[in-house]
Amino acid sequence: MTGKKPQDSLVIMTELVLPNDTNTFGNLMGGRLMYWMDIASALAAMKHCGSPVVTASVDNISFESPIRLGNVVHIEAKVTRVFNTSMEVHLKVWGEDALQQYKYKSNEAYYTFVSLDPNGKPRSVPSLIPESEEEHKLFDGALRRRQLRLVLGGKMKPDDATELKAFFLKD
Amino acid sequence: MTGKKPQDSLVIMTELVLPNDTNTFGNLMGGRLMYWMDIASALAAMKHCGSPVVTASVDNISFESPIRLGNVVHIEAKVTRVFNTSMEVHLKVWGEDALQQYKYKSNEAYYTFVSLDPNGKPRSVPSLIPESEEEHKLFDGALRRRQLRLVLGGKMKPDDATELKAFFLKD
Amino acid sequence: MTGKKPQDSLVIMTELVLPNDTNTFGNLMGGRLMYWMDIASALAAMKHCGSPVVTASVDNISFESPIRLGNVVHIEAKVTRVFNTSMEVHLKVWGEDALQQYKYKSNEAYYTFVSLDPNGKPRSVPSLIPESEEEHKLFDGALRRRQLRLVLGGKMKPDDATELKAFFLKD
Amino acid sequence: MTGKKPQDSLVIMTELVLPNDTNTFGNLMGGRLMYWMDIASALAAMKHCGSPVVTASVDNISFESPIRLGNVVHIEAKVTRVFNTSMEVHLKVWGEDALQQYKYKSNEAYYTFVSLDPNGKPRSVPSLIPESEEEHKLFDGALRRRQLRLVLGGKMKPDDATELKAFFLKD
Amino acid sequence: MTGKKPQDSLVIMTELVLPNDTNTFGNLMGGRLMYWMDIASALAAMKHCGSPVVTASVDNISFESPIRLGNVVHIEAKVTRVFNTSMEVHLKVWGEDALQQYKYKSNEAYYTFVSLDPNGKPRSVPSLIPESEEEHKLFDGALRRRQLRLVLGGKMKPDDATELKAFFLKD
Amino acid sequence: MTGKKPQDSLVIMTELVLPNDTNTFGNLMGGRLMYWMDIASALAAMKHCGSPVVTASVDNISFESPIRLGNVVHIEAKVTRVFNTSMEVHLKVWGEDALQQYKYKSNEAYYTFVSLDPNGKPRSVPSLIPESEEEHKLFDGALRRRQLRLVLGGKMKPDDATELKAFFLKD
Repeated sequence: MTGKKPQDSLVIMTELVLPNDTNTFGNLMGGRLMYWMDIASALAAMKHCGSPVVTASVDNISFESPIRLGNVVHIEAKVTRVFNTSMEVHLKVWGEDALQQYKYKSNEAYYTFVSLDPNGKPRSVPSLIPESEEEHKLFDGALRRRQLRLVLGGKMKPDDATELKAFFLKD
Repeated sequence: MTGKKPQDSLVIMTELVLPNDTNTFGNLMGGRLMYWMDIASALAAMKHCGSPVVTASVDNISFESPIRLGNVVHIEAKVTRVFNTSMEVHLKVWGEDALQQYKYKSNEAYYTFVSLDPNGKPRSVPSLIPESEEEHKLFDGALRRRQLRLVLGGKMKPDDATELKAFFLKD
Repeated sequence: MTGKKPQDSLVIMTELVLPNDTNTFGNLMGGRLMYWMDIASALAAMKHCGSPVVTASVDNISFESPIRLGNVVHIEAKVTRVFNTSMEVHLKVWGEDALQQYKYKSNEAYYTFVSLDPNGKPRSVPSLIPESEEEHKLFDGALRRRQLRLVLGGKMKPDDATELKAFFLKD
Repeated sequence: MTGKKPQDSLVIMTELVLPNDTNTFGNLMGGRLMYWMDIASALAAMKHCGSPVVTASVDNISFESPIRLGNVVHIEAKVTRVFNTSMEVHLKVWGEDALQQYKYKSNEAYYTFVSLDPNGKPRSVPSLIPESEEEHKLFDGALRRRQLRLVLGGKMKPDDATELKAFFLKD
Repeated sequence: MTGKKPQDSLVIMTELVLPNDTNTFGNLMGGRLMYWMDIASALAAMKHCGSPVVTASVDNISFESPIRLGNVVHIEAKVTRVFNTSMEVHLKVWGEDALQQYKYKSNEAYYTFVSLDPNGKPRSVPSLIPESEEEHKLFDGALRRRQLRLVLGGKMKPDDATELKAFFLKD
Repeated sequence: MTGKKPQDSLVIMTELVLPNDTNTFGNLMGGRLMYWMDIASALAAMKHCGSPVVTASVDNISFESPIRLGNVVHIEAKVTRVFNTSMEVHLKVWGEDALQQYKYKSNEAYYTFVSLDPNGKPRSVPSLIPESEEEHKLFDGALRRRQLRLVLGGKMKPDDATELKAFFLKD
């Protein structure tokens, strides 16, 4: 079985910020954005594995620039690495003020999904072969992020998280 | 100025999983849950600081048990620690199958909010005085989690994250 | 079979008033509030009987204080009394202006639900044993409210509504 | 100033029951129906008074026949009587199974609205002149229903509710 | 089998324009209106044929007057003509400013639906017998509109669209 | 002032078909799709002109293949031609069954938007310079489609619609 390319899983989503998506300051609520990001990344994961998927985890997300009412949200999602039955998906999010022709970075994130067979049990996922330099970098970092997830979830001892330790001890 | 108690910020939210909240397996979508969690924790933060707030970041979330269509979602949110103009909020989420009288843990999470003044600028937040043992534990861990956020956000060098390093190098 | 306590059925719901929930004055629409109240009380009824339920009736509701856009809605629902296959649920609703740290009574209401078996037929409900003074008062008043429902629904002659008549003729 | 006719305030609303409107039995949730009824009757009240209105109260509603997923909801709303700054609106609700060409009564209800001036203060409402026999009957009964609202809301002593007492003591 | 009357399929829909239905100018978005029009006309088609229907096509729609936030949308839909397994439905849309007691024409449109049997295959539709003068006019024009649909859909050569050609070459 | 390219206005939208978007056959409702298409094309128009826009008209849309619950909707929108203060936008819509890795054409459409100045009055739009062969073809056809809109809207006599007549009378 040959692997698939990250590019094959690319999902581009565009949404308009409507009144009900905003807080009293007229800015997009973080939870609403995470909802769209979940759908965009789930679709990327499904394109890669061709099976239904469930969200297994979401990594730290930091919201930089608020996105305003009436602005546009751009989301790009692409699978970065496969771990047997799970996939890590990388997301980039921009806001755009169409009237001012101004586009700005909002945040980046990593969502992880598990592929399911028709009985709802985890199922092997086709391998992924990164191509571009950025895809290789994302592929390499995925191991460290996975260790962080396992340590934070209490499923790995910090001492066994080799990649992660190296990251924190580099000077 | 005297500090406030975590208990004063407690928010209890109950939601019913409706068809549009579910994926094709009939399970609550992760993004929909994060949306509710964002509102519950934002309300807890607002109760503490008495100002509007914006979501600054969300820590790693790991989704354990899927919550089914027609089940109930219980969310409890409480401020754990204050960092000048920001607040960390801890969330516990359960699912409940009312027909089978069965309640199960879904996940835990930490959301961070920034308090805003009427011009939308960050504003000091009243201090927080933990009371129960669990509140003290959450208060203590908040420092390490904050360092992780800063390191992951590229705003702190791993080497300066003293608490975090101790965590990864312990034993 | 031993009875259950009202407290076991308690449901606490918290909602944020978003733009689409409001009329042109920026106040929560009554119908939107009744929608949330229906879900909160249905969940309380399901917790008591452990079966699916359908809304049978809603008693007079009087809306006192308008709840503003951006304010919080607090709903508490608890079963008050059981009538063979149906349950009366009492609701208390408050609004809260988190910025002004101000909480105010919005309204009280009674919803009645019928418990259903898997074929959709009415099904006996476990008995309810009130404990607190307030629970006893709600339990006692339930008979009079039920008579009012039956009279208004044309299913009981006013003359047979003993409790109700006593209420209207007391001086 | 001449009065207006009930017919001038008639609002006809038609809605389709979608998946998210239903409980796990596939029946329209009572709360969703009350939401639509609130909008239909508010529109009828606004047509009569030409001002914004707020829901003041809802009378007892009894849900007879469940309305199924995919069925149609028909709502008719018409002002029945005016009380200085408030209006009572009568609603009739039917379900319709378009595939079986079958239309069935769901319920009737009375909603009361207060008319507001631009400052949000109660404002006098044009008088209403009933025409048909049914309109006269609804007009006459409105007094008794109003007394019931006042008594239930603790704003009138049962003993002063002359019309209401006559109703309960008749024959 | 006797035919049915257009009047039997009449559907009257009334909707209130809420914040989330509007663009940044506070006007009803065209897409939201087309959504309501689709439901209203699908219900009219279902009333005529007594089977589920799917939207086959929508004719040119021109939006005349913007409908404002807080205004009311009135939609009337009625079957105009039957073509074996499909039905053309005519829609008229008005906006209404209840506060100014002012009602204005928004647009007209034609939606076409296909009737389906339980296997999802097209199914014959009862014939339609126009009665009023307007219904006859709509019935007659339906042939020309159908030719236009077929020509635009590449399913008929312009040269074979006799009615349509006559229309463009008249005078 | 130099013109802009169609490619600069490209908007790619991806949506997941959720339960509430479907009819009783589990297929995406036409009206829901037209709602998404309206937003996608409005965003394309706004990217081109840098001003708010309102939907002026929608051309004939023919729905070919139904899109199933759980499938993905792909929409691509691009400005085709400018007419002083208005823009025609071309849309292509595909459905995708991610599980079967199968993507299929759903329909094509043309939406027309008017650009508005801050007072809500029509405003001149930058010119458009088509580049690719397909863009030239869409640019050329836009004149004929515009004549059809004007004729159907009663704003142009069929006899004056030169391009359109040529189309219907060709060979």
